[in-house]
Amino acid sequence: MSFTPFNAPLLAGVLGDLEVAASFSVKADLAEMIRFEIALAKAEFEAGVIPEEAASVIRESLGDFEPDVRALAAAAETDGMSVPNLIAQMREKIGEPHAGHLHFGSTSQDVIDTSLILRLKTVDRILMDRLTKILARIETLETDFGEKAFTARTRMQDALTVTVADRLRIWKAPLLAARARHGDLTERLYRLQFAGADGTLHKLGEKAVEVRARLAANLDLNDPGGSWHTERSSLVDYVNVLSALSAGLGKIGQDFALMAQNERDELAFDGGGKSSAMAHKQNPVRAELLITLHRFMATLAGGMHQSQVHEQERSGAMWALEWMLIPQACVACGASLRQTERLLASITRLGPA
Amino acid sequence: MSFTPFNAPLLAGVLGDLEVAASFSVKADLAEMIRFEIALAKAEFEAGVIPEEAASVIRESLGDFEPDVRALAAAAETDGMSVPNLIAQMREKIGEPHAGHLHFGSTSQDVIDTSLILRLKTVDRILMDRLTKILARIETLETDFGEKAFTARTRMQDALTVTVADRLRIWKAPLLAARARHGDLTERLYRLQFAGADGTLHKLGEKAVEVRARLAANLDLNDPGGSWHTERSSLVDYVNVLSALSAGLGKIGQDFALMAQNERDELAFDGGGKSSAMAHKQNPVRAELLITLHRFMATLAGGMHQSQVHEQERSGAMWALEWMLIPQACVACGASLRQTERLLASITRLGPA
Amino acid sequence: MSFTPFNAPLLAGVLGDLEVAASFSVKADLAEMIRFEIALAKAEFEAGVIPEEAASVIRESLGDFEPDVRALAAAAETDGMSVPNLIAQMREKIGEPHAGHLHFGSTSQDVIDTSLILRLKTVDRILMDRLTKILARIETLETDFGEKAFTARTRMQDALTVTVADRLRIWKAPLLAARARHGDLTERLYRLQFAGADGTLHKLGEKAVEVRARLAANLDLNDPGGSWHTERSSLVDYVNVLSALSAGLGKIGQDFALMAQNERDELAFDGGGKSSAMAHKQNPVRAELLITLHRFMATLAGGMHQSQVHEQERSGAMWALEWMLIPQACVACGASLRQTERLLASITRLGPA
Amino acid sequence: MSFTPFNAPLLAGVLGDLEVAASFSVKADLAEMIRFEIALAKAEFEAGVIPEEAASVIRESLGDFEPDVRALAAAAETDGMSVPNLIAQMREKIGEPHAGHLHFGSTSQDVIDTSLILRLKTVDRILMDRLTKILARIETLETDFGEKAFTARTRMQDALTVTVADRLRIWKAPLLAARARHGDLTERLYRLQFAGADGTLHKLGEKAVEVRARLAANLDLNDPGGSWHTERSSLVDYVNVLSALSAGLGKIGQDFALMAQNERDELAFDGGGKSSAMAHKQNPVRAELLITLHRFMATLAGGMHQSQVHEQERSGAMWALEWMLIPQACVACGASLRQTERLLASITRLGPA
Repeated sequence: MSFTPFNAPLLAGVLGDLEVAASFSVKADLAEMIRFEIALAKAEFEAGVIPEEAASVIRESLGDFEPDVRALAAAAETDGMSVPNLIAQMREKIGEPHAGHLHFGSTSQDVIDTSLILRLKTVDRILMDRLTKILARIETLETDFGEKAFTARTRMQDALTVTVADRLRIWKAPLLAARARHGDLTERLYRLQFAGADGTLHKLGEKAVEVRARLAANLDLNDPGGSWHTERSSLVDYVNVLSALSAGLGKIGQDFALMAQNERDELAFDGGGKSSAMAHKQNPVRAELLITLHRFMATLAGGMHQSQVHEQERSGAMWALEWMLIPQACVACGASLRQTERLLASITRLGPA
Repeated sequence: MSFTPFNAPLLAGVLGDLEVAASFSVKADLAEMIRFEIALAKAEFEAGVIPEEAASVIRESLGDFEPDVRALAAAAETDGMSVPNLIAQMREKIGEPHAGHLHFGSTSQDVIDTSLILRLKTVDRILMDRLTKILARIETLETDFGEKAFTARTRMQDALTVTVADRLRIWKAPLLAARARHGDLTERLYRLQFAGADGTLHKLGEKAVEVRARLAANLDLNDPGGSWHTERSSLVDYVNVLSALSAGLGKIGQDFALMAQNERDELAFDGGGKSSAMAHKQNPVRAELLITLHRFMATLAGGMHQSQVHEQERSGAMWALEWMLIPQACVACGASLRQTERLLASITRLGPA
Repeated sequence: MSFTPFNAPLLAGVLGDLEVAASFSVKADLAEMIRFEIALAKAEFEAGVIPEEAASVIRESLGDFEPDVRALAAAAETDGMSVPNLIAQMREKIGEPHAGHLHFGSTSQDVIDTSLILRLKTVDRILMDRLTKILARIETLETDFGEKAFTARTRMQDALTVTVADRLRIWKAPLLAARARHGDLTERLYRLQFAGADGTLHKLGEKAVEVRARLAANLDLNDPGGSWHTERSSLVDYVNVLSALSAGLGKIGQDFALMAQNERDELAFDGGGKSSAMAHKQNPVRAELLITLHRFMATLAGGMHQSQVHEQERSGAMWALEWMLIPQACVACGASLRQTERLLASITRLGPA
Repeated sequence: MSFTPFNAPLLAGVLGDLEVAASFSVKADLAEMIRFEIALAKAEFEAGVIPEEAASVIRESLGDFEPDVRALAAAAETDGMSVPNLIAQMREKIGEPHAGHLHFGSTSQDVIDTSLILRLKTVDRILMDRLTKILARIETLETDFGEKAFTARTRMQDALTVTVADRLRIWKAPLLAARARHGDLTERLYRLQFAGADGTLHKLGEKAVEVRARLAANLDLNDPGGSWHTERSSLVDYVNVLSALSAGLGKIGQDFALMAQNERDELAFDGGGKSSAMAHKQNPVRAELLITLHRFMATLAGGMHQSQVHEQERSGAMWALEWMLIPQACVACGASLRQTERLLASITRLGPA
């Protein structure tokens, strides 16, 4: 998603997440793309594909390289992406005779996909930290209020009497499941893309496997063992996991809003939204936003499932669709986690008064 | 959508649309919200609900009012929206004894919904202008190349011989249909929201109908005749229409990409995307983006259909979901139209060489 | 949808609708396809395209024609549809010298699309009848309970005191809006498909327009004025309208479930679901199903938006996707309406006890 | 989905799958529900919760029990599911004094969820067998045609020359990935549901853990270690995996349709769809259907992501939504696999002539 400065100052704190969004800034993207090219030159020198001097000139030239963003944007309008122009700018900076060694054997999708993965690692640290805090807060709530009697509800009707701890266990279950699935996914997710123009790394001949392995190591990523230019299941799964997580948070929001109903009064909380028309109200705004954010996430996830068929060797159309969806999914998940932290922190009583 | 500054400088020209996005800036939103309050005070004076002096002080005080955006954003984090704080800021600016006459009988949703509708009118002018140009360009292509023989394809296989004009007629059909549907929709879409805290305008007593009619006239909107706080079909339909339009453009993109295949060579075009690895390529990047943008739009439309159930008198959760989806749909449609204009302009030959 | 006998006997009365589903039976489909061919022969005779005798032999031969369904199914596995084999069976029945006059100038998609439209007319009569009854029942509820005081809820919290009639007005609004939109749509929806193999009716030469007009009249459909082989917006819009309707019904279900909460007790109803484990429960099962059915409908609607890009002159892939979605949308809408009728009929008190 | 006999005889062989659908018949469902109750009685006897005689009478009574399906369907209309009535019928068959020991401590959702899981195991065997055959067929194609030169296409344009084997590797990658993910999922998926009316198994007191473990063992399922009444991620993930698989098959279909274009002629195949109007055509119908089926699957997957928020202790609304989606996802995946088998079997040449 490239466009929406929509109300950023007004709602960024509500439905957005500036910390997560930072990973999708131009600056962050360019930094990882440059890092890719430096690491590639190093790997190709290590494997004997390009001269040592080329690798070191590339590293030095690009170490403090600040691309002309305006030119990148202009080129993107023609090329649909900024990499061809970025490579040209880099090559101009590097100069002869080493410019030709840059990006050798690689293709735009290698650079863009790998930059995304490197940034997802950063995003994941943020998300998982927040999740840990949420789980800890639920533990505290369990300590404080867990033994109170609580009426279970099934199909929107009073069922049997359980305890607040039973409800909290239900809240934790999807969060723990999502954390475990995220853990399982990272090995497949945190992998290098490096397959060259046609997915075969043919330009590198018999050095292909070695260069790929070295490049992966240089970037602290897993070696994919081949191309995933069109095999996008790890990215789809990433959004699947974010959706599972946001569903768990959405459930907390949904239950909170039901518990906070005036007649039910099964919790008390600080803060809450004001109304411009009714001074007495304490709206469970954050709880509602968790529902909003999950419905939005589920929408994005549906889009990811639609994006899975990349035709032939590489698809521009479905690839760009990922660009529209994945950053938003990350930010929406970040917002859900942050709002959940605040919502749970605001609780002063759980269970009947 | 409040969050994504994602790559704005790099891809805003590709997948975004700065002209359309401007209608979703804080500035544009605040301007229309202030306009609403001034027009409401005027309508309430005209109907004898508030004193003339109140209306004129409100108009003068707010004429050059620049809200403290930082405070609005901070309040939004608690209230889930900025209106309660905006009203408070306005009242402070207006001062006693007239502050209490501001926003009288109204509620936050009235202000926010109406501001959206006013801005959609601006968006629609942009979109429809572009559509008109696209249709004109198709006419020109018909004049230039329409009589050339052309092989129709059904189920991806050669069918019978038709003409380029026949294919262009197929391209025009969904665009004309979408334009007609948009025309039919505007009467229902361009309507005031003004229903008060509980949807009944009860604070205005017997003056309610008159104030609503006058307010609608003051804002050059249609009088809804009641509340549409939870009856959101005109907004869902708006996205339905944008989706029909982007589908028509997506079809042009899909057909273009198939026609541009090397073996088929049924068109020639200027420009086209470069590859970072293969110098000979002329990628039909804009054509691909039209497919991307329609898949994205269809995803958003699915989300709108999910957002339709607003519980009870007003739903915070589903309402905020609209905020995530509608601006993006507008911008995506704007981007599709702009890219289609350029794509069609780039054509130098249509039909076999 | 061709496959699911899934639990038909068990859940057909819950989530399905046998009356609506009847329009999607093989029998109903074949009847309309045969009717199309007879009407086409008549139109072509009237326009002087084929001999009178051919038209009358076709009418007589097909009047009581019962196709070999097993052969149709077998052929469908190869051809992806049954029409080519159906035409072959019909021609065999008609025999020489008139067999060649059957289906003249037409194509499979003409037959299949038109058969669908003819059956949607039947479906719509069922749906709209039910909607009329629901609206009448709401009127009765308004008469019986409308004046009772009722607490409006916004953002899941108590707002102001209104009346039961105010809530009922909110229930009616989306139903009335959907009915009006359905009315607006029928002119575009109830139209013949008749465009021939390549969408130009070229085989009919200068008689094309006349034959199309006569065929439309013979089938009591509107003349489309051209091909809509790839311009599918009326079908997408049809599902959009069904979704708007099911959303209105889903809202009634959502509100009902909230009102029926034990602590709130804002209504009383007969029946209700039993629990296999808790004898005291009266679950608002029908209310829940309305939510289920709308979420399902919204899912299908999202799929319809994805189906809109039909490539080139005719797309087999996206066309068949419509077959998976539209019948289900009709049946789901039928089920929602039927369940809503029963739910509203079960109400014995609306408003606080 | 319970309703659509839609065209079953005509299109069941095209878009449906009778073998997979059999697992969603009433008969299959009832058989597993009865099996659950017998296994539960056994487990409760083994754990000393109910008398041995009760368990053996239950086993004998239900061994040949044929429920009154008409009564189940009638009850489902009121209860939203058939289990309460099924239990009543079973208890009548068992008679006193043991009837009360049936279903002890359990709830309808335990029975229905577990029956689903048991049937998914059967479905998975069918799906995975077909996948194995498809992978073997790809190997054969690689042996037969792998060394032929082939033009890679990126962004719909000619890229570099690779081999047919390179393209086949791309086809295999998502299938292998999906198979691996399915393997990873089964441990979480194939688990018992047994948590009782409120999710705590409180009726079983200190025997709860033992009974659950024994019941799991009796049914050859994994012990979930708690309730998953509202933690539905394994089911959502199941559809995620089916979607990944159908995406891989959809890609084969998409590529096939592009390769089969007349101008390109990169493959030859037996069969193919006939046209009712153009005798010369050989339509790649099966290839198109793979695209159809994946778009349909992606639609269902989006619905599953929307279904994830089950409110409170148990949600009737979101649970029933799963019933609408999961069987269809299984059948669609089955159809995709079957059609892919046939499509690949029909290939007589891969690569240029």
